[in-house]
Amino acid sequence: MGIGVTPQADDPRAYDVAVGAGWQIGSGVNGGMLMALLGSALRTTFTGDGHPDPLSVTGYFLTAARPGPGVVHTRVLRTGRSMSTGSASLVQLEDGREVERVRALATYGDLAGLPDDVRTTAVPPDLPPPERCLSTADAPPTAMEHAAFLDRVDLRLDPGCVGWAVGTPSGRGVIQGWLRLADPREPDPVLLLLAADALPPVTFDLGLFGWTPTLELTVHVRALPAAGWLRVRHATRNVAGGLLEEDAEVWDAAGRLVAQSRQLARLPRA
Amino acid sequence: MGIGVTPQADDPRAYDVAVGAGWQIGSGVNGGMLMALLGSALRTTFTGDGHPDPLSVTGYFLTAARPGPGVVHTRVLRTGRSMSTGSASLVQLEDGREVERVRALATYGDLAGLPDDVRTTAVPPDLPPPERCLSTADAPPTAMEHAAFLDRVDLRLDPGCVGWAVGTPSGRGVIQGWLRLADPREPDPVLLLLAADALPPVTFDLGLFGWTPTLELTVHVRALPAAGWLRVRHATRNVAGGLLEEDAEVWDAAGRLVAQSRQLARLPRA
Repeated sequence: MGIGVTPQADDPRAYDVAVGAGWQIGSGVNGGMLMALLGSALRTTFTGDGHPDPLSVTGYFLTAARPGPGVVHTRVLRTGRSMSTGSASLVQLEDGREVERVRALATYGDLAGLPDDVRTTAVPPDLPPPERCLSTADAPPTAMEHAAFLDRVDLRLDPGCVGWAVGTPSGRGVIQGWLRLADPREPDPVLLLLAADALPPVTFDLGLFGWTPTLELTVHVRALPAAGWLRVRHATRNVAGGLLEEDAEVWDAAGRLVAQSRQLARLPRA
Repeated sequence: MGIGVTPQADDPRAYDVAVGAGWQIGSGVNGGMLMALLGSALRTTFTGDGHPDPLSVTGYFLTAARPGPGVVHTRVLRTGRSMSTGSASLVQLEDGREVERVRALATYGDLAGLPDDVRTTAVPPDLPPPERCLSTADAPPTAMEHAAFLDRVDLRLDPGCVGWAVGTPSGRGVIQGWLRLADPREPDPVLLLLAADALPPVTFDLGLFGWTPTLELTVHVRALPAAGWLRVRHATRNVAGGLLEEDAEVWDAAGRLVAQSRQLARLPRA
């Protein structure tokens, strides 16, 4: 999906990465993009074991990443027959000192090799077709400042969820829409890590603007995505104590629930 | 909640623990109990920073823990003003060799110090009163083998969710009931880590019996629980590819959603 990681010559478990690099939101870096970066490094680490695909990736966000160079260090904790588990850490230099941005744990496997039983009772979000949804490029620039990020991702939001852009948030705490890479390139498991945190925060739909920093984000990748648009739905049900959970579902063009995620985030400060 | 951890004299970030010790299920150890064990060690680590309470704890389960002695090693990754983040690892000796059982990441804070806004839209599970629910002691012993675990926890299952015990699972993938410590002792944040994985697996309600090993489990603790019974609801919506997610909600006696969790688990092998 165009997120390159380069193993270092003297340490094959350390990967040079370009943080941001077209994935900034304003001066920050999209959290889903950081997950995809860690996921790419782990994919390289585990491919040799026959476990190239993320099944579960958890990131704990420590400090705000900045656009620029970084290094992802991976470590293998366990290699099993059908799955491997490891940790990953993204660090960046700050005033000449290494600062950790995100620590991750992850279990990888082989999605193509999973049994083909599907007994999903969840139903995909009901969305108008992409051409009747709103490109975030249509939104007032002050509301999002997605900037470079929007050159990489083609995001079409359900018009029923974008009242916040014109001062009338629905108050339901739901944001949903279509997503694909702007290349266009077809989705892969690492893109699903990005898709789980690529929409505007559900707090916008509650009329709460400002930065909603993620404390923890876990993505379960449940199947190889079919080619075509992804449908993504974000929702929250427990906004309390200055925190909220945000659940995401990612459905592929074949109608399969290919990823589920949950994050704990801090409400914007009033 | 009666889960003791003893800092080692020469390493205050290593804690001697008794794994199992009344929390076994058959020959295995309850996953929620392992989370509570790691959570207790991290609580001790972070209390000095003014961050005694788990806000988010994630465990990746590596190998099957056994009843007996173990050591939890904790490490501080970041200490902030309102939160601290660290990692924890449970190891046990196996044939004289240290084997890692669970690796965790966690963010701790001070639940009593959070703002008092509550805008929860989730609704608590509708349950008959505890005295009209079924103690798991009423279930056929072959169906559960909860054994020692049930001496510690008073669990009352909704009669509408226990058809599996008499050969008629509902097929909905839901299990819910009341939970408290058998002591009886009032709930605390570490108990909520246990409560998130203390009910029989939702696979029972789908008619799938056998071991459902957890790959990953994340618990968000959202508020200090009030005294009294906890209401716990487990549900799944995506059983596919030999895996399932299991979401849990824990509500306290005051009607507050005090914990939310999600796990990725493997379906019992057919």
